[in-house]
Amino acid sequence: MGTKRIGIVAPAGRLDPLLAERLRLVAGDVEHGPHLFLHPQCFLSDGHFAGDDEARARAFLDVANDPHFNAVWIARGGYGSCRIAERVLGELNGYAREKLYLGYSDAGFLLAGLYAKGCRVAHGPMPADLARPGGEAAVLRALSWLNSADPGALEPSLADGSPAAAFNMVVLSHLLGTALEPDLTDHVLMLEEVSEYLYAIDRTMFHLSAHLALRGLAGIRLGRVSDILPNDPVFAENEEEIVKRWCSKAHIPYLGRADIGHDADNKIVPFGWR
Amino acid sequence: MGTKRIGIVAPAGRLDPLLAERLRLVAGDVEHGPHLFLHPQCFLSDGHFAGDDEARARAFLDVANDPHFNAVWIARGGYGSCRIAERVLGELNGYAREKLYLGYSDAGFLLAGLYAKGCRVAHGPMPADLARPGGEAAVLRALSWLNSADPGALEPSLADGSPAAAFNMVVLSHLLGTALEPDLTDHVLMLEEVSEYLYAIDRTMFHLSAHLALRGLAGIRLGRVSDILPNDPVFAENEEEIVKRWCSKAHIPYLGRADIGHDADNKIVPFGWR
Repeated sequence: MGTKRIGIVAPAGRLDPLLAERLRLVAGDVEHGPHLFLHPQCFLSDGHFAGDDEARARAFLDVANDPHFNAVWIARGGYGSCRIAERVLGELNGYAREKLYLGYSDAGFLLAGLYAKGCRVAHGPMPADLARPGGEAAVLRALSWLNSADPGALEPSLADGSPAAAFNMVVLSHLLGTALEPDLTDHVLMLEEVSEYLYAIDRTMFHLSAHLALRGLAGIRLGRVSDILPNDPVFAENEEEIVKRWCSKAHIPYLGRADIGHDADNKIVPFGWR
Repeated sequence: MGTKRIGIVAPAGRLDPLLAERLRLVAGDVEHGPHLFLHPQCFLSDGHFAGDDEARARAFLDVANDPHFNAVWIARGGYGSCRIAERVLGELNGYAREKLYLGYSDAGFLLAGLYAKGCRVAHGPMPADLARPGGEAAVLRALSWLNSADPGALEPSLADGSPAAAFNMVVLSHLLGTALEPDLTDHVLMLEEVSEYLYAIDRTMFHLSAHLALRGLAGIRLGRVSDILPNDPVFAENEEEIVKRWCSKAHIPYLGRADIGHDADNKIVPFGWR
């Protein structure tokens, strides 16, 4: 256990350098804490992205394919992972399959494809969560799990032993039916969302449930759906009623809530059997 | 030709009664114009929707399955068609296959499923377009096409004779891989969008192009992408550069622009061979 080497890359948006410095301070206070390597690509800027597609793919491969790293930690969300996923997945070596990958939100595109390739991935906090209120706890949770597999960092319903996976709803909706889609047979699928209208969540659940009805899921758990945009006129159902209704229609068991979301309480969900 | 009977229903949002009255006046001025029947369901209100799912499905079937109507004209967009599509498509009778269906935006869910079932559908203006600047021209274009198959109402690139289909990008993205997806082999697919961020259009094109790469399309044409939300930081490409790049990656021919969009100039695209 302990003192792992973690490489941080940014396949979507750029990491703020001051936030990176805070991250070093927080990680430095962890006893027997991990060694962090912030790939310089994290600080590149190319419009919407932390460097162009080539730079972001190259940085990801630098760390993933290097035997000296134990984990690849995705710096933040935003948008961009799907643009480099095919390239990255096509160039992974044997060392890439031995390490952990952690992130969420837009990073779900890469986590999905990495999991489909047999890599060890998890949905959980990212360095940029330091900017959230209470975000230090989220980052410490991630560090403690990456460094020493702290079971206290895990999403509590995982204790039942079922294989699991977790995604942002819109990200999963965009990768179903593409080469990035992993086999989720017998998995408990946890879903979370942020900054969407309830009508759009309803529409996304139409799409997700139609696809997932045929995938042999053990069931769906709903994480937090935060910062819901105001619907005009008001939408009759809340997010849980929406998800329950579509699950029922698709004969997918609805298993209750999950302790994940776009917030500092976001717990860690390793994919698959543990 | 001429003096067709057109039934108007609202599978998504409610039609404003004053706008319905303007529609009657506009249609009344068309020589040998059609008879309009505004189904009373158009004016129901149930939160986000023009009546609950049962009322909206029932109204659609009332008109679609009635031999006295030549066409079903969808009143407006919004959100709601995907919630009733399965029910509607399961209960269509033989008369439903003999009539025309016209709409766009959210109505694309129903148009897709109806086309998959062998019905005659078209992407084009709706009654609610009267509320747009210059919207009377859009509504007259639709009436003239529904009433007397006016070729001047058609999207100009259709003149080359290829079978075609047209969709809102997000709507198509949500129906691919579901029971609503039609066979688009050899079709020119026209896409339009409104009120989205360029990064979200890029993400939707990742999903669309991954699916459509395998569908044997003749190619893609891009309609208008209007009211683009401000991207911060600025997105390096415009909408046409985004679509061209994903088409190229998926080996789908990009055929240029299409004269469709969420605006008064929206031309009519009948699906399939004409």
